[in-house]
Amino acid sequence: MRSDSVLKQFRVFWALKHFFMGEHTTENSLRHQLYVEWAMMSKWIRKQPIDQIKEYLGVKYAFYFTWLGFYTHLLIPAAILGLIVFFYGVFTFPNNRFSSDICNATDTIMCPLCDRTCDYWELSNTCFYARLTYLFDNDLTVIFAFLMSIWATLFLELWKRYSATITHRWGLTGFTFEAEHPRPQYLARLSGSNHTKVNIITGNIEPTVPLWKKIPATLFSISVLLLLIVVAIAAVFGVVLYRMSVLASLSLTNQSDWMSTYSNIFIPTTAAIINLVCIQLLNLVYDKVAIYLTEMELLRTQTEFDESLTIKIYLFQFVNYYTSIIYIAFLKGKNVGYPAKYLRIFGLRQEECSPGGCLMELSIQLFIIMVGQQALNTVVEMIIPVGLNWFNSLTENTGRLDTLKSTSEEEDLATAVKKPWIEDYRLLDWGPRGLFPEYLEMVMQYGFVTLFVTAFPLGPFFALLNNVFEMRLDAKKFLKYFRRPIPHRVPNIGVWYRVLDILGKLAVITNAFIIAFSSNYIPRMVYISLASEDNTDKGFLNNTLAYFDTKDFENGIAPLSSSYTNVTYCRYKDYRNPPWSPQKYERPTFYYEVLVARLTFIVIFQNIVSLVKVAVQWLIPDVPNALSDRIKRESYLTTQMIIKNEAKKAAGIKEKVL
Amino acid sequence: MRSDSVLKQFRVFWALKHFFMGEHTTENSLRHQLYVEWAMMSKWIRKQPIDQIKEYLGVKYAFYFTWLGFYTHLLIPAAILGLIVFFYGVFTFPNNRFSSDICNATDTIMCPLCDRTCDYWELSNTCFYARLTYLFDNDLTVIFAFLMSIWATLFLELWKRYSATITHRWGLTGFTFEAEHPRPQYLARLSGSNHTKVNIITGNIEPTVPLWKKIPATLFSISVLLLLIVVAIAAVFGVVLYRMSVLASLSLTNQSDWMSTYSNIFIPTTAAIINLVCIQLLNLVYDKVAIYLTEMELLRTQTEFDESLTIKIYLFQFVNYYTSIIYIAFLKGKNVGYPAKYLRIFGLRQEECSPGGCLMELSIQLFIIMVGQQALNTVVEMIIPVGLNWFNSLTENTGRLDTLKSTSEEEDLATAVKKPWIEDYRLLDWGPRGLFPEYLEMVMQYGFVTLFVTAFPLGPFFALLNNVFEMRLDAKKFLKYFRRPIPHRVPNIGVWYRVLDILGKLAVITNAFIIAFSSNYIPRMVYISLASEDNTDKGFLNNTLAYFDTKDFENGIAPLSSSYTNVTYCRYKDYRNPPWSPQKYERPTFYYEVLVARLTFIVIFQNIVSLVKVAVQWLIPDVPNALSDRIKRESYLTTQMIIKNEAKKAAGIKEKVL
Repeated sequence: MRSDSVLKQFRVFWALKHFFMGEHTTENSLRHQLYVEWAMMSKWIRKQPIDQIKEYLGVKYAFYFTWLGFYTHLLIPAAILGLIVFFYGVFTFPNNRFSSDICNATDTIMCPLCDRTCDYWELSNTCFYARLTYLFDNDLTVIFAFLMSIWATLFLELWKRYSATITHRWGLTGFTFEAEHPRPQYLARLSGSNHTKVNIITGNIEPTVPLWKKIPATLFSISVLLLLIVVAIAAVFGVVLYRMSVLASLSLTNQSDWMSTYSNIFIPTTAAIINLVCIQLLNLVYDKVAIYLTEMELLRTQTEFDESLTIKIYLFQFVNYYTSIIYIAFLKGKNVGYPAKYLRIFGLRQEECSPGGCLMELSIQLFIIMVGQQALNTVVEMIIPVGLNWFNSLTENTGRLDTLKSTSEEEDLATAVKKPWIEDYRLLDWGPRGLFPEYLEMVMQYGFVTLFVTAFPLGPFFALLNNVFEMRLDAKKFLKYFRRPIPHRVPNIGVWYRVLDILGKLAVITNAFIIAFSSNYIPRMVYISLASEDNTDKGFLNNTLAYFDTKDFENGIAPLSSSYTNVTYCRYKDYRNPPWSPQKYERPTFYYEVLVARLTFIVIFQNIVSLVKVAVQWLIPDVPNALSDRIKRESYLTTQMIIKNEAKKAAGIKEKVL
Repeated sequence: MRSDSVLKQFRVFWALKHFFMGEHTTENSLRHQLYVEWAMMSKWIRKQPIDQIKEYLGVKYAFYFTWLGFYTHLLIPAAILGLIVFFYGVFTFPNNRFSSDICNATDTIMCPLCDRTCDYWELSNTCFYARLTYLFDNDLTVIFAFLMSIWATLFLELWKRYSATITHRWGLTGFTFEAEHPRPQYLARLSGSNHTKVNIITGNIEPTVPLWKKIPATLFSISVLLLLIVVAIAAVFGVVLYRMSVLASLSLTNQSDWMSTYSNIFIPTTAAIINLVCIQLLNLVYDKVAIYLTEMELLRTQTEFDESLTIKIYLFQFVNYYTSIIYIAFLKGKNVGYPAKYLRIFGLRQEECSPGGCLMELSIQLFIIMVGQQALNTVVEMIIPVGLNWFNSLTENTGRLDTLKSTSEEEDLATAVKKPWIEDYRLLDWGPRGLFPEYLEMVMQYGFVTLFVTAFPLGPFFALLNNVFEMRLDAKKFLKYFRRPIPHRVPNIGVWYRVLDILGKLAVITNAFIIAFSSNYIPRMVYISLASEDNTDKGFLNNTLAYFDTKDFENGIAPLSSSYTNVTYCRYKDYRNPPWSPQKYERPTFYYEVLVARLTFIVIFQNIVSLVKVAVQWLIPDVPNALSDRIKRESYLTTQMIIKNEAKKAAGIKEKVL
């Protein structure tokens, strides 16, 4: 009984010490320091104390914050470039002939956008929309796309250098996971198994998963992933149907002027919001499913588990977030046919783009999904921990905590003095996903900022704005609402580097295609240099619109009733011969000239960017010179010491022999 | 005087020992073993004994032979693929409608190939040429181009793995040049200089080159390089003029039938030989110049010197070897205009391609330059060392060797017994270029095998044939004619890896362009799918030839005298409207359709190859699993030993304290 009484005395002493000196020690603690110096929103402009972060959260978490800080820094030039493009659009606004032409085109009657129910409409209705488009799609966009493609390469090259410096600073150069332990879950699941194997590295005997157990699990994972990808794509096309039916029903009702002017804004916006909701719902489902599937795969180490989960979730999220955007950027309105012969899929006409191009709709979609997602994340990230903690504190007296309590005497003490270890235990646990959602969020954002930056030049600016807050919010969350994580040593950001590299490569292609096929840049340039009389874009709008003879409508396609009388010709956005040409509705030479120009642009853009990328990679060494000198110096000193010691030893042996 | 006599006795002993036992020791020596087991041509099928090579020649030279062996091995599948394409051409020869059509087209009168002096000619004259073309340009070429682009990536990825294994085997993993010494030449040139600097790594004081001395030298280097590149390009265009004037003069003389049939083969062949001679002459000059320039740059270490020299010579050689090929592949006959309006540069018409496309001429050019260069190299590599050694043996009694001799007594001995150290000293010295010419030769060959492989599918086969010999010839040369090199430790093949990587990237572009613009593949596919009546290539030849009304010739362009009478229409290879069309000589829609198809092909080809490349890089880890396990095991054992030792130490200290 003696030891019991000693223990009791000790507990009382500790509780009293904490009571009187607690506040003081807390203030000096690393956690408190970090909370005050790093996690406060008011410190947003300060550099992060990464060494202290490493001390408290471990290398793995510190690498995330280091990367996030680096990324946020490099977003500054990108954001400035994007703002320049935007403000160039704002200031050269009055000189833009194309949008002025659209606004003045009250006498241009356009062909109906859907079968039967839709009426003809005036081109000038899209005036506001055309004006907005110009803000993003102006002369600077091509230069911007080029610079951002280089930016993505520079980002990775500079990160490689910076990462090498940090790795060296934290003594992890040449670090290998020499003998990573099996996951506890893996050992637990296989505890009864009699399939064992000798681990080559440690020489221990470990349970192993036979191939006939592993393959079905992997196949099952892949099929579920594919199934959910199909569901995600289906959701996007559900929204396409929504857009088309709203368009038709808006046409049926007697449209007010306001409606017809702004339906170009209203329909894409609501559709994008529905997309965003679908994305969220699917994410919720898939996150749970993916963890379950990865557990089923019985992967030996935490690293393998993380990698499998990362690829699984990332692939799905990629499809989930970007499908709607890819559809608008590359498929929508690209091959719709013409009023006499629409190209139908399952009997449905395809969506058309406004005469100003699909770029504005793409921008709206990007804005809603990217900024909406960020806002949602920030709110969720703040609310869920607070909520869960509150829930935990309610259940304080139940669960495993019971085991910690024994006598009523102590219970009194516990209520009198807040025990910090109980408090900390009550904090949120890191689930099996660990740091994953944080990286995922940032890498999805990086995707928006690189892949579709041409369509939404303000992307980097919003990303920058978000990240400045994100960094401090994450810090607060990690320090205040989550338990201190188990530290892990890692030499770099791991699989995410490869994902960023692939995104950078994809970005060159997507941006080239957006400029070539979604923006009006190439047709305008071709018009100016080949078709225009005075080498300006005067008459360009007229050039992009083809004539259609209303007598040539397919059976039952023409509007049932119309507010316009005596419409003989309506216009539609395409390059086709007019009805009075001998080869009516065939492709004119100009169509081919534009197409050749678009493709040539893609080939040139891709290859020039690749060339510059190779040059940048060649010119920027992976390790900064100063660091490389330092590593050499260290290695030199070590060698010198070894030589001296060996010489001493040799001399000693000689003496002994003599 | 006593030591002198000892020395004399020793010399006599050594000479006698060598005389009686010399043969025996030589046979057991590493050099002799290598000579018998590795350098013999009869051992060509055997794997190289790379560890022994490393022992004798040092790591740097052993890495060259390792790489060469690896490259030669991987050439085997490439050579097989190339042979399949070639033999597919041979076997499907009779079914090829396009070349048969050309051979039967005796009534197709073509427009003259040069102004005034050239006559009309019959298309069937190019019959033999068209048949040859089919051997290289058939249905399999596209698949071959795709596979070879992937091959280049696989080559690098697999080399990375193999190289990692070798590096580990030779104990060089993580090797850094910790403190590379300055070059002796550098120190000698700067011996009087009073600009000094402390070396960060070793702490020694070293002379340094001030910036105002370095910049002019670098600028001078660059300007000389640029100047010689311009000369190399001028040489190529000189040969173009040669081709054009030979064509004109052949037309002036009364051509025999033989001549008109084979001039398509004769002219490109002689032109290519002239190209090859020019290339050789320029190389001779530039090699000397480049070494001089690099010495002028005062580079501190041998590594820096080598790298600067490598880039300098490689850039020049690239232009020197490939310009004529690039001209034929991408410029020749691409935009020549049409008989009524030729596009002239400095008043000269441009060269045209034969109706079968420029591909055959490209193949001839490649064959002459690649195979010719290889044959030349092999001869030069064998003759020059033998010759130089013979020359050295003539001058044996002069030069620095004098200092080795002292008394007439010894001189007698020297003539009686061949001193091996004198023999070895008499061998050739490695110049400042070291291993460089060997790498250069192979990398230039790699360029031919990847960049232009579509135009000459037999390239890999000839390369393979050459390398099997090259490997053993190099070995013999290194063992027999050159002094044993000073060993250098290197962790990999250095800058050449990057050059190979860039060549692999370039290859995707060049092959895509060759198929799109030099081969007949795309026009034929477009014809079959869009213009043909029965979805075969029947009538394709006729489709590629435009009509020209001989009344429409520019002033003074029409042939002065002609052996054909009453030619009203002649044909030329282009897509243009016939003279009876309302827009005569304008571009028809088909021209644009073909152009769009060509560009689309390039975009698709490039992006699919890039995708597969990324996948290959992702799937093949840089270090083989077995090796990675081994490294981890080593690291684990080291850690365990350290822990044990530390524990022992700690236990010892404890005991002492108690």
